[in-house]
Amino acid sequence: MKLNGFYDDLKDSYLFHTVAVKTAGYKEKHPDADIIKLGIGDVTRPLPEACVKAMKVACDEQLTVEGFRGYGPYEGFDFLRTAISGYYASRGTKVAAHEIYVSDGAKSDIGNILDLFDRDNTVLVPDPVYPVYVDTNVMCGRRVIYAGANEKNGFLPMPDRAADADLIYICSPNNPTGAAYTREALGEWVRYAAEKGAVILYDAAYEAFITDGSLARSIYEIDGSRACCIEFCSFSKNAGFTGERCGWCVLPDELVIGGKKLADMWLRRQSTRYNGAPYVIQRGAEAALSAEGQTQIAVNLGYYKKNADVIGACLDRLGIYYTGGVNSPYIWMKCPDGLGSWEFFDLLLDKCRVVGTPGEGFGACGKGYFRLTSFNTHEKTAEAADRIGKYFG
Amino acid sequence: MKLNGFYDDLKDSYLFHTVAVKTAGYKEKHPDADIIKLGIGDVTRPLPEACVKAMKVACDEQLTVEGFRGYGPYEGFDFLRTAISGYYASRGTKVAAHEIYVSDGAKSDIGNILDLFDRDNTVLVPDPVYPVYVDTNVMCGRRVIYAGANEKNGFLPMPDRAADADLIYICSPNNPTGAAYTREALGEWVRYAAEKGAVILYDAAYEAFITDGSLARSIYEIDGSRACCIEFCSFSKNAGFTGERCGWCVLPDELVIGGKKLADMWLRRQSTRYNGAPYVIQRGAEAALSAEGQTQIAVNLGYYKKNADVIGACLDRLGIYYTGGVNSPYIWMKCPDGLGSWEFFDLLLDKCRVVGTPGEGFGACGKGYFRLTSFNTHEKTAEAADRIGKYFG
Repeated sequence: MKLNGFYDDLKDSYLFHTVAVKTAGYKEKHPDADIIKLGIGDVTRPLPEACVKAMKVACDEQLTVEGFRGYGPYEGFDFLRTAISGYYASRGTKVAAHEIYVSDGAKSDIGNILDLFDRDNTVLVPDPVYPVYVDTNVMCGRRVIYAGANEKNGFLPMPDRAADADLIYICSPNNPTGAAYTREALGEWVRYAAEKGAVILYDAAYEAFITDGSLARSIYEIDGSRACCIEFCSFSKNAGFTGERCGWCVLPDELVIGGKKLADMWLRRQSTRYNGAPYVIQRGAEAALSAEGQTQIAVNLGYYKKNADVIGACLDRLGIYYTGGVNSPYIWMKCPDGLGSWEFFDLLLDKCRVVGTPGEGFGACGKGYFRLTSFNTHEKTAEAADRIGKYFG
Repeated sequence: MKLNGFYDDLKDSYLFHTVAVKTAGYKEKHPDADIIKLGIGDVTRPLPEACVKAMKVACDEQLTVEGFRGYGPYEGFDFLRTAISGYYASRGTKVAAHEIYVSDGAKSDIGNILDLFDRDNTVLVPDPVYPVYVDTNVMCGRRVIYAGANEKNGFLPMPDRAADADLIYICSPNNPTGAAYTREALGEWVRYAAEKGAVILYDAAYEAFITDGSLARSIYEIDGSRACCIEFCSFSKNAGFTGERCGWCVLPDELVIGGKKLADMWLRRQSTRYNGAPYVIQRGAEAALSAEGQTQIAVNLGYYKKNADVIGACLDRLGIYYTGGVNSPYIWMKCPDGLGSWEFFDLLLDKCRVVGTPGEGFGACGKGYFRLTSFNTHEKTAEAADRIGKYFG
């Protein structure tokens, strides 16, 4: 009996744990401190009414023999795949329903897709990065190289043709930096992937936050992408499904490697190691894409955007460099006065009683940067911005 | 770029596809034929009312900021882990809530648990077998050996000390044979695993069908099991959650290999590649374990059991050998007159207009055997038994 030794290579991330411990320690010393959390990475607004209504109808259907649903299709129900295809079509992007695979979320898919690839591939991830991209590859012993994001490239690294990569992660708008690629820049990445025979794993989880029409909401807006890109998206950050768990990935017909259609391998994988997302949840997701659902989602997205605007305006007034804040729920700011990420964390907590997330927890290139999020209430976000403005102004 | 070449080693299973094609072909030739399906592997009774009620309350909670739930704990909500621990305790089995890991189903867990083990392990599976045990291992290049089940051992193979195995699959009551191990036999398996330093992956998905008190409903009823067994269970076959997706696995504190606690590795795996089962579904699962839920589940289980009795009584009258039928929704019968599995399939369809599943689709040892299930209605099951009794009597 041998365990998977690659787990020993995983670095324990103490980022959010350390944030929690430090915050609790401060709270103990200052029990009356009104601490405002701008480190929240989860949505907070209620589910759209259309979704809840559809989910309850689906629940009631399970009470009769006629309405009862057992095992669903591994690839998701046709009603949802068709609705997602329509969601793309509404923006002029062609993705056929049969190319869409529904699941319990983009995080699961992003990890599970790796099962299709040999261990002996090189993986290129941006730095700073959503830690799951790295850890899922370390767990199976794959070599990881980094594309450094920094102020010079606006936290949007471009391909380095000297570096060979087989799997390339792109998240746009990005977590944690909030930076979003232009169509031209994505075109560069697609050309690079095509040249190298690589596959781009495109994380579009935050696409619904894009308001700038010059930015791509899907990688399939880019020429050549259908032959080399898998897109992952989710109902988490748009419809607030972080607790309901529903997402999808797209494996286009043209995505063929060595004569093998990746969609076929994925269906084999999913039918063997997965059993589909709950019917009730898929009905909720379908409702999220209805006209009524989209209107209700727009209200929630508007709520978060207003918060992002308030934080962005504060940093603008202070002359502090940041990315994101538009087209993203995240604001990635440079720590003032040359402070380190954790130094700034301590100062912000002590002087403004505001909690955020030190950038270096997301990778070496995050040193000296800091992430704030727009998921708190209007009132608390405004109060936090006010305190930051007064202290650093 | 290299794809995972082990996918080439997977055998395509045409079992259920061939059954469907043959049935459709017969239907086309005999449009008026009243075909009865006893091949159904999925539950068919409505969800318990208690579950639907709890799910709808949970849906409504999502409509307010206060009630809204975002990301849940990777290991499942405490309310459900505690309820499952109580479910074990009600039968006198000690499994602590913190040893229970909730997921979207036993199928996912049974595949995903393999991530914790090195590729270079030998896997022992029974034959005939639930194909997922084999395929999930073939997909990552692991060596699979078989424990032959047959009439001589009552389709309950015992350990062969000459064979070395690192991972051992046991499913009891078994799919597809319906056979269930005694406590003594399971004790033998646990001792074998302890001697070999192996881990038993114990699939208890059908435990709720056990009525014979001398049989184990959990592997943790067996001495020594906590140091070498992972148990998988689910709300699918008891509460009818095949479409709602909720299950759990147990990693006891004592399960430590080379100084590593497997529960820690599993939590690392789940937190990196998974994001928990939906809150709404977990509330439904909690309700399934309530007194009200258990009463309603007993009605559904009783329904299926009555069908199994009817089929069993028919085979008894005909003097046909079978396993299962009690303690299981499955009846695993010997094909009469020395017929092959597929010969019997054709004959049964043509003469009785009854569809079942040829045993050889589950493995070489299934040749000459046939699976019937108890998931159709009382009326159709009785009619099918009547036809079989008349033709073969």
